[in-house]
Amino acid sequence: MEIIKPRTLSGFMELLPANQAQMERIMNILRTTYASYGFAPLDTPIIEDAQILLAKGGGETEKQIYRFQKGDSDLAMRFDLTVPLAKYVALHYNDLAFPFRRYQIGKVYRGERAQRGRFREFYQADIDIIGDGKLDILNEAEIPSIIYNIFNRFGLKRFQIRVNNRKILNGFYAMLGLSEQSGEIMRTVDKLDKIGAEKVKAILMTDCGLSEENADEILKFIAITGTNAEVIAALEGYQGRNEIFDLGLGELKAVTANLAAFGVPEENFAVDLTIARGLDYYTGTVYETTLLDHPEIGSVCSGGRYDNLAGYYIDKSLPGVGISIGLTRLFYVLDEQGLLNPDQNNAPADALVIPMTADPAAAISLAQSLRAKGVRVQVYGEQKKFKQKMAYANKLGVPFAVLLGEDEIAEGKCALKNMRTGQQVTVTAEEAAAQILAFNAELEAAAVILEK
Amino acid sequence: MEIIKPRTLSGFMELLPANQAQMERIMNILRTTYASYGFAPLDTPIIEDAQILLAKGGGETEKQIYRFQKGDSDLAMRFDLTVPLAKYVALHYNDLAFPFRRYQIGKVYRGERAQRGRFREFYQADIDIIGDGKLDILNEAEIPSIIYNIFNRFGLKRFQIRVNNRKILNGFYAMLGLSEQSGEIMRTVDKLDKIGAEKVKAILMTDCGLSEENADEILKFIAITGTNAEVIAALEGYQGRNEIFDLGLGELKAVTANLAAFGVPEENFAVDLTIARGLDYYTGTVYETTLLDHPEIGSVCSGGRYDNLAGYYIDKSLPGVGISIGLTRLFYVLDEQGLLNPDQNNAPADALVIPMTADPAAAISLAQSLRAKGVRVQVYGEQKKFKQKMAYANKLGVPFAVLLGEDEIAEGKCALKNMRTGQQVTVTAEEAAAQILAFNAELEAAAVILEK
Repeated sequence: MEIIKPRTLSGFMELLPANQAQMERIMNILRTTYASYGFAPLDTPIIEDAQILLAKGGGETEKQIYRFQKGDSDLAMRFDLTVPLAKYVALHYNDLAFPFRRYQIGKVYRGERAQRGRFREFYQADIDIIGDGKLDILNEAEIPSIIYNIFNRFGLKRFQIRVNNRKILNGFYAMLGLSEQSGEIMRTVDKLDKIGAEKVKAILMTDCGLSEENADEILKFIAITGTNAEVIAALEGYQGRNEIFDLGLGELKAVTANLAAFGVPEENFAVDLTIARGLDYYTGTVYETTLLDHPEIGSVCSGGRYDNLAGYYIDKSLPGVGISIGLTRLFYVLDEQGLLNPDQNNAPADALVIPMTADPAAAISLAQSLRAKGVRVQVYGEQKKFKQKMAYANKLGVPFAVLLGEDEIAEGKCALKNMRTGQQVTVTAEEAAAQILAFNAELEAAAVILEK
Repeated sequence: MEIIKPRTLSGFMELLPANQAQMERIMNILRTTYASYGFAPLDTPIIEDAQILLAKGGGETEKQIYRFQKGDSDLAMRFDLTVPLAKYVALHYNDLAFPFRRYQIGKVYRGERAQRGRFREFYQADIDIIGDGKLDILNEAEIPSIIYNIFNRFGLKRFQIRVNNRKILNGFYAMLGLSEQSGEIMRTVDKLDKIGAEKVKAILMTDCGLSEENADEILKFIAITGTNAEVIAALEGYQGRNEIFDLGLGELKAVTANLAAFGVPEENFAVDLTIARGLDYYTGTVYETTLLDHPEIGSVCSGGRYDNLAGYYIDKSLPGVGISIGLTRLFYVLDEQGLLNPDQNNAPADALVIPMTADPAAAISLAQSLRAKGVRVQVYGEQKKFKQKMAYANKLGVPFAVLLGEDEIAEGKCALKNMRTGQQVTVTAEEAAAQILAFNAELEAAAVILEK
C-alpha cells in the first residue's frame, strides 16, 4: 500500500492526550462556572449561509473567512460566536425568554496568515445576556463576578479585571469638543503602556491635531487611578458637564457598588480609564482581564455592553452584554510558558487494573466495583511481562496501578500501588476506591494554572 | 438598516435551549461513561488536508465531502472520526501509549441530499482502542459493558446489544466453498428481518447462484438462536472444519465468557449470526445495539474489530476495536417520537433569585451563597412587575423561584417557591440550597430516555 505522510494543517491545534486533559479541565471550569450563573449552553452550526454570516460584511472578516460553494449554496464557516448568536436570537426570538443568557464554547475559523501562536481554527468561549428592548445594569455588574470565579477556579490570584465605561469616554471627549476625533484619540491613548505619556501627548498634538491644553486634559484624565472609590471621586469632578458622561458615571457606580456582594475582592478589580475595546460595537461597560505577571499575553477575557445585537436580522432592539475568552490562544501561551500544572492527573484513568492471573474475571469485577464508586479505570488486558505492564502504566501517567494476583483474590483484596510515591498497600476494593478518590481530589484541588 | 431574513441551513441541527439541555445531558453521560473506562478525550481539527482525508478515497464519501480551496490549500471537512483518528495515531505514534484508548464526540460533515431526519452536520460519539501489532480479545469483550452502561444510564431497560464475529461468518462460508460470494450472501441475509426466509432463499439461489443445499445450510445457520450457551453449543457443531471459523468461535466464547463480571445482564445481550456490519473493514467481533420497542430506528450504537486502522499513513500493524453512536440522528428520532423525558430540569438554572427590594445586594449575596453550595442560580435584575417576573421564571422552566423581600432579609431567610408544586416555604439560604439540590437530584435520577 502506498503511504501518505500524515500531517495536521498548520494553524490547527491538535493536542496529545495529557495536554488534551488539561484543555478539558479548563473547558469544564468554564462550562460549570457559566452554568452556575444560569447561562444556557448553546450549539449553533459551524457552517452558515454566507450571505447571512456576512450581513455586516466588510473589512478583515471577509478576507479571512472560509467561504465555499457546495451545490448551489454559498456557504461560510463562522468566524466568531457573536454573529451566529445574533442570527439565533433573531430566528428564535419568539421561543426565547428574555433576558436570554447563553454560553457557547465552540470552534471558529479565520484564514489568517499562519504564524507561531496564530490559529486558523480556534475555540472561543463566550457568554452573552440579551435583553428585549431593555437590559438592567445589574447584568453588567454581574460580569466581573463571573470572570473572577473562572480565574479563581483556575487557581490564579494575580489577575485583574479592568473595567471602563464607553459613555464616560464618549462624554469626556464631547466635553472637550473632540467627539469627532474620539476614535483616533482612543487608539492613541491605548498605546500609553507601550510608548509612555510623552509620546502619546506628541501624537495627540501632531497626528490628531489637538491643542496642548486638550492633550494635557486627556493625559490628566487617563492618569486617574486608585481604589474604586478614589477613581469615582475623581470622575465626580467632571460631573454636570455632559449628559452621556453622567450616565456612564452612574453605570460605573452601579457596576462597582455590588462587587463585595458578588464576591469580587478589590485587589482583583480596577477601574481603568484607558480601556476602550474597539470603537463602534460597545456602548457601555467594557471589560478586560490581565494576568499581572504576564502582561505580554494581553487581555485574556474581554467584552462589554452593546446596544444592538441583531439589527441585521430583526427589527427589534436587543441590547446585551458579553465576554469572550480566546481559549485556544490562551491555552497555547500558557502551555508554551510552562504555566499549565503538569502534576494534576492528566492521564485518561485514575487507576490501571492489572490482572496477574490467566483468568481476567476477578480483575474485571474489581474494575467494575471501582467504577461504581466513581473511579475511572482501565483494565490492562494485553499478554505482556510484568515490567512492560508497569512501563505502560508509567507512560499513561496513571496515579495508581491495582495488581490482582491469586493471593489477593483469595484474600478478597487487591494490591494498590501509588505510582507517584511508589507506596504499595493491600486493601479491599472499597478501601482502594476511597484512597484513589482522595488522592485524586487532592490533585484536582491544586492550581490548574501556575503563577511563577 | 436593511434586514436579512435569518435562517439556519437545512440539514444543520440547531436546538432551542431546553432541547439543548437534553442533548448536553446525553453527551455528558457519554463522556463520563467513556472516561470511566479509561478512554482519553480527543479533539482533532474539523478541517484536514483533502489528500490526507481522502487517502482511502472512492465511493460515496468523495461525492458527499465538503471540499474547497483556501489559498493554495486543498481542504476538506472530516466526514467521520475514524479517518482523523487514523491520521492522529500515525502522526503521533511515538508519543502514544498502546493500547491507545480515545473517545471523541465531534461534528462531522456529509453533503447528503437534504431530507427530513438526514443531517449534513452531525455529531458522532466514538470510542476506539488501538493496539500496536496486537490487541487482546479482552478489549472486544469489554465493549458490550460500555454500551450497556451508557444505555442503562439513559434509563433504558428494553435494549439489546447484538454481537457476531466476522471470522465465524467467513469461516462458515469457506466451509461451503462460498468465500467468493460471501459479500453478496451477507447483504442478502441482512434482509432476513424485512423480507423473510423464503425470499432470502430465493434470492440466494437465483441472484447468488447457490445450490438449494447451500441455501438451506445458510438459512439453518442464521436461524441459530437462543441463550449465549445455546448458540455457542450449536456453533460447536461446525467446529474442526475451518480454521478461521474455529478462531472466531474462540473469540466469541471469550467475549461472552466475562459478561457477568462486566455487569452485562443476559437479557440485554444476544449473539446474532445475521449481523455483518459492512464488508471489508471489520475482521472480528461486530456489534449492533437496538431499542427493542423501536426497531425502526435501526442500530443506535455499532462497531467492531478491525485489523488495520492506519495503513494509508504508517507502515505499522495497528489493530483496533471501536463503536460509534450517530448522536444527532439518534437525538432527532428520540425527540420526534417524544421519548426524551421532558420532566427533568431542562432550564438553564436550578433557581431564579428575584430581588423584591430596590437594593439588589442581599439578593446577590444570597445567589452567591447558593452557588457556593452547587446550585445554578440566575439573579433576575430587570425592573418589572412581580407578575412578569414570575412569568419569566415559568417560561425559563426553572424548578425554583427564590423571593427576597425586606421581611425575609430582616429575618435572614428567603421565600423558596417550588414552581412545579406551587409550594412556598420561608427558609435560610442553607435550607434553600439543600431543598433545591435534593429536588434536582430527584429530577436527574429519572430516565433520560423514556420507554413507551
